[in-house]
Amino acid sequence: MKLYNYFRSSAAFRVRIALNLKGLEYGYISKAFLKNEHRAPEYLAVNPQGLIPALEVDGTVISQSLAIIEYLDELHPQPRLLPADPLARAQVRSMALAIACDIHPLNNLRVLNYLRQELAQNDDGVNTWYRHWVAEGFRGLEQQVAKHSSTRRHCFGDSLSLADVCLVPQMYNARRFNCDLTPFPTLVAITTHLESLPAFDTARPEVQPDAR
Amino acid sequence: MKLYNYFRSSAAFRVRIALNLKGLEYGYISKAFLKNEHRAPEYLAVNPQGLIPALEVDGTVISQSLAIIEYLDELHPQPRLLPADPLARAQVRSMALAIACDIHPLNNLRVLNYLRQELAQNDDGVNTWYRHWVAEGFRGLEQQVAKHSSTRRHCFGDSLSLADVCLVPQMYNARRFNCDLTPFPTLVAITTHLESLPAFDTARPEVQPDAR
Repeated sequence: MKLYNYFRSSAAFRVRIALNLKGLEYGYISKAFLKNEHRAPEYLAVNPQGLIPALEVDGTVISQSLAIIEYLDELHPQPRLLPADPLARAQVRSMALAIACDIHPLNNLRVLNYLRQELAQNDDGVNTWYRHWVAEGFRGLEQQVAKHSSTRRHCFGDSLSLADVCLVPQMYNARRFNCDLTPFPTLVAITTHLESLPAFDTARPEVQPDAR
Repeated sequence: MKLYNYFRSSAAFRVRIALNLKGLEYGYISKAFLKNEHRAPEYLAVNPQGLIPALEVDGTVISQSLAIIEYLDELHPQPRLLPADPLARAQVRSMALAIACDIHPLNNLRVLNYLRQELAQNDDGVNTWYRHWVAEGFRGLEQQVAKHSSTRRHCFGDSLSLADVCLVPQMYNARRFNCDLTPFPTLVAITTHLESLPAFDTARPEVQPDAR
């Protein structure tokens, strides 16, 4: 397996965590956003969506981090990242999508670039935008997770899930942009626990090969 | 089952299509965006994410349209909206997420309101933003779908899937905002076929009870 990757991509960070949790080895192919390598014809031939990450398995390419992780979970169910019960699966997916649809896409680099270049926003304008969508998304997620987390070590019940895999990269970004996290004590506590696990720790942006 | 709904919500439109395809009856509870009913304490107690749609099943609430549809598909697999083969499922999810993560969240009402109110954008600024993200997302999706659609009647192979359920509401919105669709002939052809099916037709915004 090869993962088209970039150390700072939060969606790639999710996939790295999932691969680590499942103990799967993979080739790391870096596509540097700042050099626009993910928009080069060579990469668009691999992934026409032009986004990171993409996973290549036996010559077939899967794009979109959640599609990749669900695929890995179906083929390598140890540890399983989605519970067996359909209603529980739905809750976990709802938490993951609250991040993957309603926070992250608003704050990724291409959107921040649009704000700067097309809408003439300065650092203040960009940071206010960023923090606004994190706060909006985390507000609901904090309540949902507080209701479903049993020990404040995982988002759902007391086992690892796709929601945890999405939470840590989002929280990493929230700290990078100095978002106020005081209203989200449950999310912060869970992140603190998860970051102590080797699978999460070794997926961190700053320890990836292209971060140096 | 009760669906917290709004005729114009594109994410709710997806769920209505899925419920119709599976022949499931549901109660329609309207939450009018323009009156901010989805942000009222009464609704936040149901769905703390404060977004539409949410499905209530036996007293439990599921939010996020894709989580709802995957849940419905697991419990009511006729017709199935995700293929049996894991790699095929991944491709379908990738197409659905290209819309649900990378187009729709950038263009929903709360974001357009932010552009108008916080960033002082006029109609031109908002429309340019809207069309930009549709064009960005559809460009990659057109290629991906052209490769995987066998008869230009469905996004993947020749059967209905979650990707079709996401495509039609997104195309509906793209037309509403006068996006240029000439670069996306495959997506347009598939939408034309799908819109002729009763399950899609009766899920259209303008025929919902709160549209009048």
